[in-house]
Amino acid sequence: MEKFELTILGCGSATPTLRHFPTAQILNIREKLFLIDCAEGTQLQLRKGGFKFGAINHIFISHLHGDHCLGLPGLVSTFALSGRTHDIYIYAPVGAEALFRPMFDFFCGNIEFKIHIREFDTTETSEIYADRSLTVTAFSLVHRMPTCGFLFKETPLLPHIRKDMIDFLGIPHYAINGIKQGEGWTTSEGVFYPHEKLTKPSAPPRTFAYCSDTVPVFQNAALLEGVDLLFHEATFLEQDVARARQTLHSTALGAAKFAQAANAKQLVIGHFSARYTDEELLLAEAKAAFPNVALADELLTFKV
Amino acid sequence: MEKFELTILGCGSATPTLRHFPTAQILNIREKLFLIDCAEGTQLQLRKGGFKFGAINHIFISHLHGDHCLGLPGLVSTFALSGRTHDIYIYAPVGAEALFRPMFDFFCGNIEFKIHIREFDTTETSEIYADRSLTVTAFSLVHRMPTCGFLFKETPLLPHIRKDMIDFLGIPHYAINGIKQGEGWTTSEGVFYPHEKLTKPSAPPRTFAYCSDTVPVFQNAALLEGVDLLFHEATFLEQDVARARQTLHSTALGAAKFAQAANAKQLVIGHFSARYTDEELLLAEAKAAFPNVALADELLTFKV
Repeated sequence: MEKFELTILGCGSATPTLRHFPTAQILNIREKLFLIDCAEGTQLQLRKGGFKFGAINHIFISHLHGDHCLGLPGLVSTFALSGRTHDIYIYAPVGAEALFRPMFDFFCGNIEFKIHIREFDTTETSEIYADRSLTVTAFSLVHRMPTCGFLFKETPLLPHIRKDMIDFLGIPHYAINGIKQGEGWTTSEGVFYPHEKLTKPSAPPRTFAYCSDTVPVFQNAALLEGVDLLFHEATFLEQDVARARQTLHSTALGAAKFAQAANAKQLVIGHFSARYTDEELLLAEAKAAFPNVALADELLTFKV
Repeated sequence: MEKFELTILGCGSATPTLRHFPTAQILNIREKLFLIDCAEGTQLQLRKGGFKFGAINHIFISHLHGDHCLGLPGLVSTFALSGRTHDIYIYAPVGAEALFRPMFDFFCGNIEFKIHIREFDTTETSEIYADRSLTVTAFSLVHRMPTCGFLFKETPLLPHIRKDMIDFLGIPHYAINGIKQGEGWTTSEGVFYPHEKLTKPSAPPRTFAYCSDTVPVFQNAALLEGVDLLFHEATFLEQDVARARQTLHSTALGAAKFAQAANAKQLVIGHFSARYTDEELLLAEAKAAFPNVALADELLTFKV
């Protein structure tokens, strides 16, 4: 199966520490790299992970807190210094253009590519990206500033043609595309073979959802129903739930309950507060409500 | 002797690599920390080095290329998140205010300290900082944009009183300060003891000079005459001298010749191009002209 995998570049909260970089993740879908959030140090983590900078064309910023976007000027500067010639697209909440355009203009002189900043409205669910094989939907989260999560969803693939049936029935080449699209076939004897007899279903479209920073927003569970891989922030332990509520973050248990509500297949938690030296405690609290959960860590990869 | 030491936080050029962080250095003078340049990753390097963020009150930016200043928003955000209450002063070429003030305003909300950006004119030599024990002088370098180097110089200390002489002559306490300032003493018998007989000279003021990014600017040699520790950029090997001239950088040999012209006591070279895997070659070329030279490296400390 073609690649669909998430690599954590940073999973700490607030500031870089000796244990964690602040937030950035990279989603590799068939060797196209989608960068999700871009804290200070992201470009260094990309190098450590051996990711090709030229394969990154789309960057998704969940919100404009520094620990989710302050790596942008440095990364785009590096694109500029490396002689990049293809455009880069940055999807970010309203405000990003005013904030980052002057930085890009100043630090990335004489470049041969365009920097597109596509701002989206964080108050509504909207498709902010689509290509032949993927859509990205932004959906509202609840944090101290306008924030969105992202749902990455493969476009459903056409079914596979059953070559044995095609050969057996002597179906001509010109008819194949129609059959892939859903048509059946009637033989010269007048026997009708429905689409389902002539094809095998392709793999179901894979999905990844990213929820950070936020309290658990159970209204999003329907949109994310059955998601293959869910990243949800889990800044705090349950003992600090008051602090989580105050700062509009999640506890590990809250993240797990959301994963359960969304019928996620796998949960990864991150955005850990630096106050905890033992993150296994966060894992244990999440496991109580959602068994298939893992702790994020730098350069850890999760395959779908 | 009280501390006067330089720690390299990053000594690569252009972009972060797996070998080097881009430029930042910290000068510890009697536990006051002076940050010189602040590339992306500086705050992480400060943590690795165990430096107290609260002891940094003054930041000196040589020029507004990304690899010398893009760590500022993240570092100042971290100051904000850590509940800092004392002001921070940033000394930088003209343009820094327009560029960074909007970032600070946006990313550092509700802070209890002021962020002072003190712009200086890079075309002239000027004292940009002074306290009781130190002055910092900015001097012009020659690079692709307005750039300054910095000379850190201890204020000359008053001489030490010779307690044996004070006791022997029965000099009263009220006269001590005058003697420190240069006065002599006449005994009740009318014998005059000059200042030099009553004191021992204190240690000479120590100096550190920072020259990056630049071609060697021999006009600065007089200002830096006899400097104890000189950091000079040495981006290129002599084989790439044409590239050095084109980009207004120095070769290792060029840096060494400047150190020689300035009668520096010790030279540290850095700002290495990522093209060289063996930096010992840079060292060898510098040594040919100036023997007391060392290669910069992350978290390496040079004491004066």
